[in-house]
Amino acid sequence: MGLIVKKFGGSSVGSVEKIMAVAKRIIDEKQPGDKIVMVVSAMGDTTDDLIALAKGINKEPYQYTREMDMLLTTGEQISISLLTMAFKTLGQPAVSLTGPLAGMKTNSVHTKGKLVDIKPVRVLAELDKGNIVVVAGFQGCNEIGDPVTLGRGGSDTSAVALAGALKADSCEIFTDVDGVYSADPRMVKDARKMKEITYNEMLEMARLGAGVMQPRSVEMGKYFNIPIHVRSTFTTKPGSFIREEYTMEDKEFTIRGVAHDNDVAKIAVLGVPNNPGIAHSIFSALADANVDVDMIVQSIRNIEKNVTDMVFTVAITDLPEAKKIVDRVADELNAIAVLIEEDVAKVSIVGAGMLGSPGIAARMFGALSTASVNIEVISTSEISISCLIKNAKLKEAVNAIHAEFFPAK
Amino acid sequence: MGLIVKKFGGSSVGSVEKIMAVAKRIIDEKQPGDKIVMVVSAMGDTTDDLIALAKGINKEPYQYTREMDMLLTTGEQISISLLTMAFKTLGQPAVSLTGPLAGMKTNSVHTKGKLVDIKPVRVLAELDKGNIVVVAGFQGCNEIGDPVTLGRGGSDTSAVALAGALKADSCEIFTDVDGVYSADPRMVKDARKMKEITYNEMLEMARLGAGVMQPRSVEMGKYFNIPIHVRSTFTTKPGSFIREEYTMEDKEFTIRGVAHDNDVAKIAVLGVPNNPGIAHSIFSALADANVDVDMIVQSIRNIEKNVTDMVFTVAITDLPEAKKIVDRVADELNAIAVLIEEDVAKVSIVGAGMLGSPGIAARMFGALSTASVNIEVISTSEISISCLIKNAKLKEAVNAIHAEFFPAK
Repeated sequence: MGLIVKKFGGSSVGSVEKIMAVAKRIIDEKQPGDKIVMVVSAMGDTTDDLIALAKGINKEPYQYTREMDMLLTTGEQISISLLTMAFKTLGQPAVSLTGPLAGMKTNSVHTKGKLVDIKPVRVLAELDKGNIVVVAGFQGCNEIGDPVTLGRGGSDTSAVALAGALKADSCEIFTDVDGVYSADPRMVKDARKMKEITYNEMLEMARLGAGVMQPRSVEMGKYFNIPIHVRSTFTTKPGSFIREEYTMEDKEFTIRGVAHDNDVAKIAVLGVPNNPGIAHSIFSALADANVDVDMIVQSIRNIEKNVTDMVFTVAITDLPEAKKIVDRVADELNAIAVLIEEDVAKVSIVGAGMLGSPGIAARMFGALSTASVNIEVISTSEISISCLIKNAKLKEAVNAIHAEFFPAK
Repeated sequence: MGLIVKKFGGSSVGSVEKIMAVAKRIIDEKQPGDKIVMVVSAMGDTTDDLIALAKGINKEPYQYTREMDMLLTTGEQISISLLTMAFKTLGQPAVSLTGPLAGMKTNSVHTKGKLVDIKPVRVLAELDKGNIVVVAGFQGCNEIGDPVTLGRGGSDTSAVALAGALKADSCEIFTDVDGVYSADPRMVKDARKMKEITYNEMLEMARLGAGVMQPRSVEMGKYFNIPIHVRSTFTTKPGSFIREEYTMEDKEFTIRGVAHDNDVAKIAVLGVPNNPGIAHSIFSALADANVDVDMIVQSIRNIEKNVTDMVFTVAITDLPEAKKIVDRVADELNAIAVLIEEDVAKVSIVGAGMLGSPGIAARMFGALSTASVNIEVISTSEISISCLIKNAKLKEAVNAIHAEFFPAK
């Protein structure tokens, strides 16, 4: 018995058959006294269909962000009404609520909104009437009532935040994978499903390239201290719990996961004067353009000439913008050259236990060395170590590191 | 210069091309200083597509009226966002508002809601900013904010009511015909477009079968005294004005139109006792089942036996329900027989000038007689005369009457 928020993504509700299947499953799993809130995304291709319509009007419809939100919020409104009808058809009282009706208040940054307040008065009232409450994910309204979408991964964020506001016992995120793995199972055959992982580890995994959860929703879970249960739409087996601390003696592994990211590019600015303020001049220009810089290494190139090399990585999507800025700044600084490498990838290990376990870094580098993978850049955080390598070596690298920290039983 | 509400139906905004065409036209026709509110329906087939989805969940989705409203209101939300993008693409500032955002307050009768209040604060604010305001027709919300649709013809009603609340100068209803005709142009080759017609005449025409405007929207126009301009989506020519009184000396014709309706059935209850309360027992039972009864004739059948015949018409859609009720009541009354005729039709003439012009009825009956059309039932109102005839004779009858009152020039 408890209050549980369950989130189903677009592919889980992609057809009327799938919607009926979700409704059946939820009713089957429901314990007497359970209060259930469903958060659902738009049906499979609906969002793409709506965007295609908008592109028929204007090739760049996202310049009209408010109108895109007016358009796209209909997608979830369709799926919540259909799922609610499915529950009712199966004899289960239910009611649908749009984001605004569920009390999801946002700022006014259309298409990339942030939740600023949640007042789930209506949700609680409908739960008290015995209804399963079906809430539209991904959306809310600003202070004048205009619909606002939350941007990428917004439905996960809606679900976790609503769970927090409702003081729910847990938030279940149903997805096409059955949990959080020690590495991407598509890349590592022996990847293990983790029973538990902490918010911080999950955030670090996501930041370093693991796609299973959007960082914003994990942050939301951490803020409200709501356990997030990542589980499969297709099976009833338990998945992985994301929470503040481990509850089980599952501390076999100091490292909780191996993450990778091949959407990165390396930029090297060679031969810049080694004076105070040089790093600032490069990175503040990038920050002004909203370009996130990741791994940064500065090395002395030539002590006599007092010049240095500045090496860092950016997301591949930011590369054109970053290149423009770096070329300009390098020119102003009289740098010798700017080198761009796109055939790189980042492989990382994550684990909160790493701090108290010396030698973890050495084991990682050793595994890469044995696999003949050259390391170009290294960076570390409190709970992670990342190495930049050649993209062509990524699969070997991830498997070598995984085998080192998660040996076959 | 003025404040004008312009309503476009689903076929006028049935594709992105048509939406762009509507936007272009409105911008072309806009005079400096004009304030324009657009009321639009869902794109062409959207509503049917949504209903088909719902039927995939449950063959009778309309039993879930609240959820059907949640589903169907997305249709207009899609068209308002696209039309607004079209305006903006053409350089015209515009903003979309759902029914609720436009202040359209309804009762809670889902799928058949009635407007109970309109507070168009936001509409006025957006007009003052120089926007064309694009409002979703057919919808509003009840006092707890749930979406409610207005039922059949709801978008016309939204438009006229909003025009009333805004104290607009006029309300233009764009449709696939270019005005109100003296008879259905598909049936009468010489049908004339009327420059003007009064609310009462239009209401009577609609009640008697003319399809161009839903009665509710005409009543709304009459209530607010808003001139309604019925005009074509495809041409810029003026159409017909529906208003309180004629403004032009266009009184050539005492009769304003010939209406017809072949979706009627005749029910005859033969040989019921001619006692007080007999009519009440039949018609109250029908009223309890929400069956509208139209033409009623009671005639003495047999004075000695003191029995009478009761003849009346109902809409063909109500016939199964009506038959069940009438059979039961006829049984209780010991009536001799119940006869049903489905091959009947009603032809009517409408005109406010009729009252002061004796001989109109005689001219109508004469025209029918000359055309060898037998009259089964006659009924009259202050501004109309209706005859029930055989369906097979309908076209001849309508043409004969039209030729009598609207002679070829």
